[in-house]
Amino acid sequence: MRGLQVSVIGSGPEHEGRAETVGRLLGERGCVVVTGGRGEVMAAAARGAKAAGGTTIGILPGESRAGANEWLDHVVVTGIGHARNLAVAASGDAVIAVGGSWGTLAEIAFAKLLGRPVVVLEPGWEVEGVARAATPEEAVELALSRVRAGA
Amino acid sequence: MRGLQVSVIGSGPEHEGRAETVGRLLGERGCVVVTGGRGEVMAAAARGAKAAGGTTIGILPGESRAGANEWLDHVVVTGIGHARNLAVAASGDAVIAVGGSWGTLAEIAFAKLLGRPVVVLEPGWEVEGVARAATPEEAVELALSRVRAGA
Amino acid sequence: MRGLQVSVIGSGPEHEGRAETVGRLLGERGCVVVTGGRGEVMAAAARGAKAAGGTTIGILPGESRAGANEWLDHVVVTGIGHARNLAVAASGDAVIAVGGSWGTLAEIAFAKLLGRPVVVLEPGWEVEGVARAATPEEAVELALSRVRAGA
Amino acid sequence: MRGLQVSVIGSGPEHEGRAETVGRLLGERGCVVVTGGRGEVMAAAARGAKAAGGTTIGILPGESRAGANEWLDHVVVTGIGHARNLAVAASGDAVIAVGGSWGTLAEIAFAKLLGRPVVVLEPGWEVEGVARAATPEEAVELALSRVRAGA
Repeated sequence: MRGLQVSVIGSGPEHEGRAETVGRLLGERGCVVVTGGRGEVMAAAARGAKAAGGTTIGILPGESRAGANEWLDHVVVTGIGHARNLAVAASGDAVIAVGGSWGTLAEIAFAKLLGRPVVVLEPGWEVEGVARAATPEEAVELALSRVRAGA
Repeated sequence: MRGLQVSVIGSGPEHEGRAETVGRLLGERGCVVVTGGRGEVMAAAARGAKAAGGTTIGILPGESRAGANEWLDHVVVTGIGHARNLAVAASGDAVIAVGGSWGTLAEIAFAKLLGRPVVVLEPGWEVEGVARAATPEEAVELALSRVRAGA
Repeated sequence: MRGLQVSVIGSGPEHEGRAETVGRLLGERGCVVVTGGRGEVMAAAARGAKAAGGTTIGILPGESRAGANEWLDHVVVTGIGHARNLAVAASGDAVIAVGGSWGTLAEIAFAKLLGRPVVVLEPGWEVEGVARAATPEEAVELALSRVRAGA
Repeated sequence: MRGLQVSVIGSGPEHEGRAETVGRLLGERGCVVVTGGRGEVMAAAARGAKAAGGTTIGILPGESRAGANEWLDHVVVTGIGHARNLAVAASGDAVIAVGGSWGTLAEIAFAKLLGRPVVVLEPGWEVEGVARAATPEEAVELALSRVRAGA
């Protein structure tokens, strides 16, 4: 039976520590961590998941594995540029945002559009109708509880 | 010489009147109006542009013209679902948002990600770093002035 | 009322002359010529259409107008790389292939997948189940007759 | 260290037996089997890989897991329809085609466009420049040898 998939989105080197904790907590809970496959928050979340013995998938924008971080078990090469943000959002049973800029906002919007539970770990994008959490632990628990509630 | 292309994004029947005015103002200024090609705000903006003798392009999410509104001169059928929002944002020299929900937020985010000038016509999504306008006239003037400033 | 849209696909500098004739014939018949917006066959088809007073649309793979040819009335910037080949195929009421390599084959396949009439102008990809024409005139007549038959 | 990923593409219930063998052989060799995630050849290849203890990834066209087969360890939900064929082709270090129709031809074309080794298991699409194999064993060996040669 397939494990729950949780997409961790975001960017910004100052958010890597918390992203790594989010990844570790998800890995400990048996969740597969899905990301956009590149650096900073994406790399940190994957690193954290691997440290906890978890499984990681990166969904890359380019036409090759170039730019993929080293903590990915599986790499999906989409070739569709920023439109891969839709796939990152859609592939999560829940989505957790850690930091991030415009690409992250697009992913939050797509996740809401598709009805995926989304949690923004503070500080981060403030969007009306999107849940927030103060700590990595709270973000993970909130995201997973929403998946369970929706199932 | 190709005319300026301005993408008008959004949704919500209550915003159609202002969207039609935005479309008309753009048509009067010789701009091509680009939209997602469907109903409500998208249809109203195209209708306004056509009333002013302008040209309209709809970028559809599906695999056929199904759901296209009747005020489109040209229809691009993308087949890529919500990922067509990236194309709508990217195809505008500027982007004006009128109302709208999550799909509109994704388009605002993509437009900013790609460096396109974006104006939200109030009321509408409040996003840090995105310009706002109180009236259709102000939205159009602001959007066009930003294109000229960037050119 | 919107004119018929015909996508002209292909590549290869040795095919430009015939692509230009295809574009001209389509323009003379009031068809809008849709292409992938770049050079060689795409540019030649658009050039021919403009010489006949026609309208042209280019559907670009990148995130900006970079690489667009100069004979396009309207440019759709998709940002999705080679996946824009799906949009080029889907946006034609019919598709005519002139020369071309792997990207063209992908477009032929997508056009067939979506039920669009496809004509390969000889020489060109030989694909079982895809119609062929010996001259630009024959390619255009065959493509348009298949659209009418399907309508 | 990430295992080699091989995409198995195709369709047609009459090809399921050979697709399952291809999947099993890939699983035995430690390859991750990537498919479009749905039925027939895609399901059979994944089933074969799981029977051999392998890992499977499905790259789905829709906006949810609807239509996913039951032999997938990980599911990527792209939301981009047939454009996901680009991702299926691009995500393989090599691509093996078993049966298939127009969507498969698009994947073969994209794989060649991106420089991925492609092998068609006979009978199947005959495309100039694409290698062919008479048996599942030969198809797998040829595909893997080409990856090694290219590395």
